[in-house]
Amino acid sequence: MIGRKLTERLVSDRALAGQPIASLHLQDVVAFDPPAAEFTVTTETSDVADPGVADALGAREADVIFHLAGVVSGEAEADFAKGYRANLDGTRALFDAIRRHEATKPRLVYASSIAVYGAPFPTVIDDDFQPVPLTSYGSQKLIGELLLTDYTRRGFFDGVGLRLPTICVRPGKPNRAASGFFSSIIREPLAGKEAVLPVSRDVVHTHASPRSAVGFLLHAAALPSDAIGARRNLTLPGVAVSVDEQIEALRRAAGNAAVALIREEPDPAVAAIVDFWPQRFEAKRARALGFVAETSFDDIIRAHVEDELDG
Amino acid sequence: MIGRKLTERLVSDRALAGQPIASLHLQDVVAFDPPAAEFTVTTETSDVADPGVADALGAREADVIFHLAGVVSGEAEADFAKGYRANLDGTRALFDAIRRHEATKPRLVYASSIAVYGAPFPTVIDDDFQPVPLTSYGSQKLIGELLLTDYTRRGFFDGVGLRLPTICVRPGKPNRAASGFFSSIIREPLAGKEAVLPVSRDVVHTHASPRSAVGFLLHAAALPSDAIGARRNLTLPGVAVSVDEQIEALRRAAGNAAVALIREEPDPAVAAIVDFWPQRFEAKRARALGFVAETSFDDIIRAHVEDELDG
Repeated sequence: MIGRKLTERLVSDRALAGQPIASLHLQDVVAFDPPAAEFTVTTETSDVADPGVADALGAREADVIFHLAGVVSGEAEADFAKGYRANLDGTRALFDAIRRHEATKPRLVYASSIAVYGAPFPTVIDDDFQPVPLTSYGSQKLIGELLLTDYTRRGFFDGVGLRLPTICVRPGKPNRAASGFFSSIIREPLAGKEAVLPVSRDVVHTHASPRSAVGFLLHAAALPSDAIGARRNLTLPGVAVSVDEQIEALRRAAGNAAVALIREEPDPAVAAIVDFWPQRFEAKRARALGFVAETSFDDIIRAHVEDELDG
Repeated sequence: MIGRKLTERLVSDRALAGQPIASLHLQDVVAFDPPAAEFTVTTETSDVADPGVADALGAREADVIFHLAGVVSGEAEADFAKGYRANLDGTRALFDAIRRHEATKPRLVYASSIAVYGAPFPTVIDDDFQPVPLTSYGSQKLIGELLLTDYTRRGFFDGVGLRLPTICVRPGKPNRAASGFFSSIIREPLAGKEAVLPVSRDVVHTHASPRSAVGFLLHAAALPSDAIGARRNLTLPGVAVSVDEQIEALRRAAGNAAVALIREEPDPAVAAIVDFWPQRFEAKRARALGFVAETSFDDIIRAHVEDELDG
């Protein structure tokens, strides 16, 4: 989803990190239609963890690489081997392939996640708080961060890892991420459909819109390497709100009728997972580096209405 | 070195975690003589990263596994591929082999290192301070910790990772660890030989004797899993002293003549590495779990004299 939206932005911007885009190569495990663009776009359906695939990607010697691929949290938890293969082996294969093509030293933007953090948490997580993941997905993402830092330090590429907050409002169908309800309680009522809220309205979490997520990726691609320093992975800003505040923002945007479509149906299994999620982040370093997110959940709903519902 | 000393203790104790030892299997990449023992001892010279080796080890279905193997910091920095192969691929192959033999759920004691920490540091590092390694060795050790935590959480084995402080006084010849001088400035003068001090006497670092290191491993093997909790990797206690305090302890143990054998020869390359090393650790969790180290550097010298120099 983020990859598709990033591609749309690249196609419309025709530039990245202040340089015109000459060509764009897109790779995914599932088939997709290439976008129409004013520069060359090539596509590839393949699995980066399969032999030879990463090496062929590394041989392309791109200037900027966005590594967004991966198996999401719910699936990585349900299928241990699949998660490690995609999120660890795939990432390492790609990093090693770039290492072997030492002619170029590309900027590599890696999508990590706030899933690297595990309870117990302070109320606000600062940039020095240690990540101790409590899921296989979070462990895999954090291992990718460590590889990125070491490979960058060794000069194989110029990496930046982004711990993305929960992306909300996620368009389309729910995926297997346990955080799906944060989006569906907004997206479905705005489309006149019922949505289930499986947790208490008190739950606080940090969100950024898909539009902000794309903004983060583009900003990371353009950051001077020296400004980032030795710690290459950044916890990004977002909007920290309770579910109740989300619902009140929905009420302001779409009225009581929309809110009435949310059915509270507590699911102890989901609640147990969400209890171990972080709530608020300081994100001081990322803010100082110029990463910008929405400042209210109303803005997040507005971004969804503008980008997905034609305003 | 630690493996050899641990073996000696197991042979003399004839018990581990309160149970008599029925048999002991020893594996290393270099050939070694099996110790004489009152229980069965088998040995194996092999590389755990080679195909099939880890699987055969996993099939042994041990009750307790000590994973001490690895390429040391200096070598992992000098040979990128060798370090990742031994410290990441080897560790993961072993963990995966144990996972495949689900009949047993062994206690796995993993030797990690304070090299997981990277500057900037607070004066005293507490248990919540985030590890950000600044070497390939530290990155590999931390990735092993993350795998250990996740594999333990998934129920594949019952892991404990130990962030060992610098082991001092290390007997025998120097290895390729950059921390070697901490030992040689004590060991060599005690043997009537010259030693070079490549850093300032103000440098503060945390040490534990080889005897304490073996004690840590045995204690970890016996810890109840519930007492450890979700965070499976422990920063261990040690003696935090300046090089000057080390030297004064040497003077108390062996007089001015021994101290006169230390030649100060500042090496900017070593100093640059040591500047990025942590100084002091709180080690609250490990102390609460009963891990015990020396309380003074005099004790550390005494342990060396007793264990290596026949008192």
